[in-house]
Amino acid sequence: MNIIILDIFYIGGFMSKICVDGNTACARIAYKLSEVSAIYPITPSSPMAEVCDEMATAGEKNIFNKKLKIVEMQSEAGVAGAVHGSLKAGALTTTFTCSQGLMLMIPNMFKIAGELLPTVFHVSARAVATHALSIFGDHSDVMAARSTGFLMLASSSVQEAQDCALIAHLASLKTSLPFIHFFDGFRTSHEIQKIEEITNDDILKLISFDDIKKFRERALTPKNPHQSGTAQNPDVYFQNREASNSYYDKAFSIIEKTMVEVGKITGRNYKPFEYYGDEDAKNVIVVMGSAAQTIKDVVRKIKDNENVFKKLGKIGVLNVRLYRPFNTQAFINSLPKTVKKIAVLDRTKESGAVGEPLYVDVCSSINIHGLKVDVIGGRYGLGSKEFTPSCAIAVFENLVGENKNSFTVGIEDDVTNCSLNLNSELISNFKDIVGNDCYQMMFFGLGSDGTISANKNSIKIIGNSSNKFVQGYFEYDSKKSGSLTVSHLRFSDKEILMPYEIEEADFIAIHNYSFINKFNILKHLKMNGTVLLNTVLKEDELNKNLPIFFKQDLVKKNAKLFTIDAQNIASSLGLGNKINIIMQSAFFKTSNVIDFETAKNEMIEAVRKTYKRKGEKVVLANEKAVLSFDNLKEISLSNLTNEVFDSELNYYEHDGCNGECGKCLGCSIEEKFAENVMKPISLREGNKLKVSGFSPDGRDPTNTSQFEKRGIALNCP
Amino acid sequence: MNIIILDIFYIGGFMSKICVDGNTACARIAYKLSEVSAIYPITPSSPMAEVCDEMATAGEKNIFNKKLKIVEMQSEAGVAGAVHGSLKAGALTTTFTCSQGLMLMIPNMFKIAGELLPTVFHVSARAVATHALSIFGDHSDVMAARSTGFLMLASSSVQEAQDCALIAHLASLKTSLPFIHFFDGFRTSHEIQKIEEITNDDILKLISFDDIKKFRERALTPKNPHQSGTAQNPDVYFQNREASNSYYDKAFSIIEKTMVEVGKITGRNYKPFEYYGDEDAKNVIVVMGSAAQTIKDVVRKIKDNENVFKKLGKIGVLNVRLYRPFNTQAFINSLPKTVKKIAVLDRTKESGAVGEPLYVDVCSSINIHGLKVDVIGGRYGLGSKEFTPSCAIAVFENLVGENKNSFTVGIEDDVTNCSLNLNSELISNFKDIVGNDCYQMMFFGLGSDGTISANKNSIKIIGNSSNKFVQGYFEYDSKKSGSLTVSHLRFSDKEILMPYEIEEADFIAIHNYSFINKFNILKHLKMNGTVLLNTVLKEDELNKNLPIFFKQDLVKKNAKLFTIDAQNIASSLGLGNKINIIMQSAFFKTSNVIDFETAKNEMIEAVRKTYKRKGEKVVLANEKAVLSFDNLKEISLSNLTNEVFDSELNYYEHDGCNGECGKCLGCSIEEKFAENVMKPISLREGNKLKVSGFSPDGRDPTNTSQFEKRGIALNCP
Repeated sequence: MNIIILDIFYIGGFMSKICVDGNTACARIAYKLSEVSAIYPITPSSPMAEVCDEMATAGEKNIFNKKLKIVEMQSEAGVAGAVHGSLKAGALTTTFTCSQGLMLMIPNMFKIAGELLPTVFHVSARAVATHALSIFGDHSDVMAARSTGFLMLASSSVQEAQDCALIAHLASLKTSLPFIHFFDGFRTSHEIQKIEEITNDDILKLISFDDIKKFRERALTPKNPHQSGTAQNPDVYFQNREASNSYYDKAFSIIEKTMVEVGKITGRNYKPFEYYGDEDAKNVIVVMGSAAQTIKDVVRKIKDNENVFKKLGKIGVLNVRLYRPFNTQAFINSLPKTVKKIAVLDRTKESGAVGEPLYVDVCSSINIHGLKVDVIGGRYGLGSKEFTPSCAIAVFENLVGENKNSFTVGIEDDVTNCSLNLNSELISNFKDIVGNDCYQMMFFGLGSDGTISANKNSIKIIGNSSNKFVQGYFEYDSKKSGSLTVSHLRFSDKEILMPYEIEEADFIAIHNYSFINKFNILKHLKMNGTVLLNTVLKEDELNKNLPIFFKQDLVKKNAKLFTIDAQNIASSLGLGNKINIIMQSAFFKTSNVIDFETAKNEMIEAVRKTYKRKGEKVVLANEKAVLSFDNLKEISLSNLTNEVFDSELNYYEHDGCNGECGKCLGCSIEEKFAENVMKPISLREGNKLKVSGFSPDGRDPTNTSQFEKRGIALNCP
Repeated sequence: MNIIILDIFYIGGFMSKICVDGNTACARIAYKLSEVSAIYPITPSSPMAEVCDEMATAGEKNIFNKKLKIVEMQSEAGVAGAVHGSLKAGALTTTFTCSQGLMLMIPNMFKIAGELLPTVFHVSARAVATHALSIFGDHSDVMAARSTGFLMLASSSVQEAQDCALIAHLASLKTSLPFIHFFDGFRTSHEIQKIEEITNDDILKLISFDDIKKFRERALTPKNPHQSGTAQNPDVYFQNREASNSYYDKAFSIIEKTMVEVGKITGRNYKPFEYYGDEDAKNVIVVMGSAAQTIKDVVRKIKDNENVFKKLGKIGVLNVRLYRPFNTQAFINSLPKTVKKIAVLDRTKESGAVGEPLYVDVCSSINIHGLKVDVIGGRYGLGSKEFTPSCAIAVFENLVGENKNSFTVGIEDDVTNCSLNLNSELISNFKDIVGNDCYQMMFFGLGSDGTISANKNSIKIIGNSSNKFVQGYFEYDSKKSGSLTVSHLRFSDKEILMPYEIEEADFIAIHNYSFINKFNILKHLKMNGTVLLNTVLKEDELNKNLPIFFKQDLVKKNAKLFTIDAQNIASSLGLGNKINIIMQSAFFKTSNVIDFETAKNEMIEAVRKTYKRKGEKVVLANEKAVLSFDNLKEISLSNLTNEVFDSELNYYEHDGCNGECGKCLGCSIEEKFAENVMKPISLREGNKLKVSGFSPDGRDPTNTSQFEKRGIALNCP
């Protein structure tokens, strides 16, 4: 792995900007502010440990002008013990984890908090395995650790993952309390954005060496002998447990002040509770994590088109950044006085509870302060389920309409009917009217074909040669190498508040021809969008071979279609299967996202830098790949549609018949499962599956891999 | 260990009654209803695993007429994995744990709940280690596991520990959901009560073999191959997670129905929420666990003396038995419609949270149902801190008075001033007026001197030869053998709702003379109470040797004092240091708790049974010990007080001067700690220590054992 080179690009200009993902943004701060890190990497937090390891190997220095000492333990339980021990010895210590890993740390976390030891656990929040394992993001892990006495700070974006990491480390020292700093796993953790970097010099302006001195003075050393971790009996335990109250009582204002101080240096001002929306809002959503950005963006767009969305009334969103300590007075103060209804969104599920944790906390706050506000709660985004603008609108619609409580949003629940409607008129109005203020691109590649690396390089080129904001997110199949990857790239003149995958792209590149027969790729294409297709087919062969729904969609959407035979070009240049540079060049040529001449020069420079060590021949071949855009062909749609063939498989007529339609494979449990569950999943239509499609305890039939064919080979073996 | 013989006494009569502690009561049900138990014993839950082990070794049969298969694992993490595996294989499986042990099970608990597997984890709820370790009871462990999806059922007494264990096992099978069944560790778990036993025959009337069949049919076996524990991607994970909703939706009414069915067989009718008090109460305490009994008893006594306690208004207590699923409608329904103020008591502390878990759930319930009720929350009983009637009254007084929120009760918090006043007029009124409707005895013995065994035998004798309710609780010092043990015995014609130590005893036995110089034992003596003192001192020597405060207290309380030289009697009978039978006999003779002749015969029978195997000589010696009551001397107090000596140490003048009073050992940190913390603790006055006496992070000086002297030797070495 070579994360730093891949994921960090320094960008020139007035401020120091870098293109990084959330893990990297966060880990670099943790590195700078720590002396020791005990690690046991777990997806999707692993890159944080890896970034630190690479920085240490590369000899980077923390603010004490030393390298971070990294120790890999036998499990997360060992990590927590090592962190505890290291803290007791007076070393600034950090770790990175999530999900089951965090669960294994819980016993030691109670002790670390009980002993008032300052540390930050950075968590790429991930689902805890229940009916099934999920390596993807939600808040069930951090929420399961909320009893431990750790303070909890949430970041909603890549920039915040850096900034709040800093706030957590500084405030931890000032409060003498440990922090969980978390952000959405496999969203913020893996999303690339152009952010303003915080340097060692910035940190040195903020850190108090007095705080560090105080921490060191409490260390258990031969010069400062004392006992700790004693056993106490009923006579005294309770009194001693209450002796730490003042630390927690003071924490809120210390953290608030730290946020102000960091804001003075960075210009980015965070608050424990951040409200955005109408000052006289009646309907407010309360949320944590990346979804806060989505909702903020939706609120902004609704305000820009107020007349269309009158029905929703005055609205706003409250982002809970500081979840522990939860200051109910500050929470109430940050809400508009006019608020009448609140919908609380939790990215976790606590079966059997009164409601999910944030919901219950909000209900309690309302009750404690005697307000007359209706509060409803809902779940979203479990296991990285997308939370889109449509979801946000559905939640607002529920607030002014049905007032469904304990709802879900983002799925269709046809069993207990908890889900909100995502097909309302308002939602389609929103899609029609609002549009996007950014240029969106999707690239369908094969795992390990170089598409993602090329896209990361494209982000760098665009970020570097313009003032545009950039965002990159890379969707991997859990089957890894050889299966589908989808790169989602956005470029915009405004800040990109879109922590979700692209639904409709201005530009779609299909790097493997086989995909067009397997997925309904063009459903993602905007009207008047551009499609770049890598194919060995000549223009006159295309008509015979393109599936009918593909051709129809191109026409319906008035698309531009470009083809290039990247395979043969790569082969003739001696690049084997490496089509990534050819496709990147074709992308810049056809998309016009930036001036092509600039892009070309940047690509050539990158090629020279990347392949320098491999000799002049390789550099030359790749330079020629950059220049291969001459082979691009624009295909006229009018020719295409004259001849109509049935495509081999028209997936989109078949609509879940439970094995009785004649088109299904039959009626055995395995075959029904293959037809009703596996097939939609492999068609990238798994999101449409309803709750009734699943066994309540997560069981599936065996013997089903026979039904799965990939069919991705370029050549007959 | 020989727990069964020690802790279970079958008592004849109409119904099958047994004298057992909560662990035993619970474990016997778990045994009967399980096929497999994976264990890793942890204090104070260990006896549950041990009881099962002994039952299996003794060949006892479960309801399937088989022995329980017990497997000891390498840790609680392994236990949870083994339980999960065993359940997947279709075996009815249980385990016993608490505290850190339960924490290690959390990851697997999420999976067990997610896969809808029925099991019961029986938990002797214990503090999770924070600033210090505590092996004692509170709810911080079960509360830290409340996110897992396990249902949670609480027992408040020994009888309930048995009955609710049964309810949990039955309801688990019916709901297909796992349960945590918990009760207060080192209170209910170790308290002995006379309870009505549930037999295999009773259970066979209640169990549904259909439920078991359905469970078995879901097992993962070669005949029923399927996959489980798969990995799911963002497209489907959320939908599948919601597929289990209906199981949780149905659970409440299934459990309620199970309670009714169990009630039909046992005559004991439990409800998810149990209210006791005025039907038109305005002020209600909501609580879980054994404290519910205390408050119920206080409410009853206040109602009996309503005119004295007018100030408190109409009051009641709501015992939360079924904590998960928490049915907010049922909760509201179980409250009187008139309620205006609620105090929620949590036996846990969640630093940084809005409030403790039950408090937050109650606040939310009130908000959800739009009630106008003020809710305040408080903490009590952490690490087995006593929750007494005084505490209950203090909570009611706070409700009608100051309305302090986030309060503590049972300690004095002089730092953050969270604690409630325990010295109010009403509280002393309560003590004066209400009295006790039971006979209370305290026995001060040396660890391993046989006092506790003898007391357990006394409970049996009294329970067996009368219709009295009995209660025994045994306070051990964490220094174990050779240090102080205090046995607390209560006998009453009414049900004993006193899950706390005896504050004022009718009868006090001092089995080791050295104690009277070390502790203020007589502060526990009621007016007109009886003291039985084991001493080698003759009547005429007593006056010179008894400390002044001891003599004064005897007079002040108009006590009866009996002495016996048990040491010399034991020695002359060839019993060595075993004074327990002699003291037991003296107890029955002097206390008149039951007819002495009956007691004598029962003691002799017990001696014959116990020592049969050791030969006639030992039996005879012990029989003579039973008859040694002739050596009892009643000491006239009028003689005693004529001569007044200063006692060697008068602990009760010195009042925490922080090392500056001239009486302290000096001013080093160690010496101050010895004076201000260690000394009160060893004087059994640790409960009086205030919050300011402790370091917030739980650190203590080292090198302090030099200050601790035990001085318990009977003879000069």
